[in-house]
Amino acid sequence: MRGAVIHAPGDVRFEELDNPKISRPTDAIIRTVATCVCGSDLWPYRGLEPVGDPHPMGHEYVGIVEETGSEVTHVKPGQFVVGSFATSDNTCANCLGGWQSSCLHREFMSTCQAEYVRIPNAHGTLVATDGHPDGELVPSLLAVSDVMGTGWYAALAAEVKPGSTAVLVGDGAVGLCGVIAARELGAERIIAMSRHESRQKLAREFGATDIVSERGEEGIARVKDLTGGIGADSVLECVGTAEAMRQALHSARPGGNVGFVGVPHEVQVDGVELFFSHVGLRGGPAPVRRYLPDLIDRVLSGRINPGKVFDLTLPLDQVAEGYKAMDERRAIKALLKP
Amino acid sequence: MRGAVIHAPGDVRFEELDNPKISRPTDAIIRTVATCVCGSDLWPYRGLEPVGDPHPMGHEYVGIVEETGSEVTHVKPGQFVVGSFATSDNTCANCLGGWQSSCLHREFMSTCQAEYVRIPNAHGTLVATDGHPDGELVPSLLAVSDVMGTGWYAALAAEVKPGSTAVLVGDGAVGLCGVIAARELGAERIIAMSRHESRQKLAREFGATDIVSERGEEGIARVKDLTGGIGADSVLECVGTAEAMRQALHSARPGGNVGFVGVPHEVQVDGVELFFSHVGLRGGPAPVRRYLPDLIDRVLSGRINPGKVFDLTLPLDQVAEGYKAMDERRAIKALLKP
Repeated sequence: MRGAVIHAPGDVRFEELDNPKISRPTDAIIRTVATCVCGSDLWPYRGLEPVGDPHPMGHEYVGIVEETGSEVTHVKPGQFVVGSFATSDNTCANCLGGWQSSCLHREFMSTCQAEYVRIPNAHGTLVATDGHPDGELVPSLLAVSDVMGTGWYAALAAEVKPGSTAVLVGDGAVGLCGVIAARELGAERIIAMSRHESRQKLAREFGATDIVSERGEEGIARVKDLTGGIGADSVLECVGTAEAMRQALHSARPGGNVGFVGVPHEVQVDGVELFFSHVGLRGGPAPVRRYLPDLIDRVLSGRINPGKVFDLTLPLDQVAEGYKAMDERRAIKALLKP
Repeated sequence: MRGAVIHAPGDVRFEELDNPKISRPTDAIIRTVATCVCGSDLWPYRGLEPVGDPHPMGHEYVGIVEETGSEVTHVKPGQFVVGSFATSDNTCANCLGGWQSSCLHREFMSTCQAEYVRIPNAHGTLVATDGHPDGELVPSLLAVSDVMGTGWYAALAAEVKPGSTAVLVGDGAVGLCGVIAARELGAERIIAMSRHESRQKLAREFGATDIVSERGEEGIARVKDLTGGIGADSVLECVGTAEAMRQALHSARPGGNVGFVGVPHEVQVDGVELFFSHVGLRGGPAPVRRYLPDLIDRVLSGRINPGKVFDLTLPLDQVAEGYKAMDERRAIKALLKP
């Protein structure tokens, strides 16, 4: 089979690879129906994280089950499945608590930009849809496997409640899905921080009521202006930089909450600052598995359409162009089809 | 009148001072019935915070109203009152949200180890009891003005819920009051981290079910042992050092919560570590005003007795000995009576 391999910053190639094989009874092999490039894939692509030896890439996927290990009984070959970027046995104490992305047997997916993928912990990770979905729903189901699930978690971690005000820091795919999540969870006012016209437009379409294009101190001041001078109830930090975290913490009101889902890069939170802010802070890799049945239902019923974050669709063999387009901000998110 | 003044580390004197006066219509003057020395007073006393010019000390108080400004109508001269170490107008947006210690007109009390005290924002800060309480209840009512209110907030910030497991980091007066709070909020298992026998005893009396005397990695390992290997639902960090914060974050389970109420001293929280912990973190000066009516009721009904944290009672003119005894850990907390 063929799949994407990163060799160095800026150098992603589509190459011949060994077919994945069942190596444990809890594994499954899926034939990829759609995969994509994640904002976090750009960190090594941009040389902001070490690449190390050449290795496969990708952690978002929907597909058709090809083969299952002996302990995988709830999904069968031929079924369409959605999973999470973090695999989980769904039976350990952390999974039972709803924190499947801290599963004691967690493995992060990293080989999904390929024609076939081995899913570890398939028994606790994959959720099959009822029949095969229409092709037009595939992008949204793919979004659920990461960006929509992550936006959902950001909104829950930020404790978005009916009638509340939510701020989105970051207008990438996760931030935009966070707008959907905030709307679905009942936020009355949704302030999206974005400087890019196409993203502002999509944010509004997803439910944003206000756009703030300023950043830094000016951005914080604008949010305060819009929130009675005290800040927002909930802030979703969907970037992962120190600047974004600062923006988020200072945009929340005393007693408000920040949910942070951008993997932090050189972020330190000052204890005194957090203390006197009275802001609650929770982050982490989203426990997408917890939300999968609900989010799949919302997609299949047409209630949400997070697949709109894919503004570029390419054949999988053009995966390098997908990285390039996202790196150059020509695309919000690139969907890849084998 | 006379009151405590700190001149330098280790040098607290009881001196003649000007009588406080009403300076704003929202002020009240109280005659102190009891005050005390706080763990946070020890930071400058130990030279760990700059002292600067000589200045009065103390932020915990119960007293009898002597005089009120024209806008203070809900309490009257002669009434026994309890307040908070942070004053609040109780009408601004933050107060209405329940975050009175982030009141837009907040002033921190700092002159309470004295015979008379001016209370700014008295209209939104003081709560009168029904009649004058019995003398034996005074220590517990005094505790409510800070340490019990702070322990209560720590437990709420750590989201202690019925049936949950709570860990107390810090066996000072706040940590011990945190045990009371965790018990009142329904924690089934309460693990107090303490190396001091007298404090362990009081922790057990207040409701602790387990004592962990180890610290650092060993302490974390002991907590994990006691919590099915994954950590506690709620951790109350009642110290304020980097070591205590580390202990707290590593003692909480994924999805658990840390409430931190020790004023942080050189604490930095690493973004990546917090991210992958899945732990929620909220701290700050406790919004004691929010809890006053409830906590006063619990004291007057005999349900809680946080006054037991005062294991030393001195005449106010021996305030210097109160600091010394606490500094040398001969006393958990010193109560002072004019």
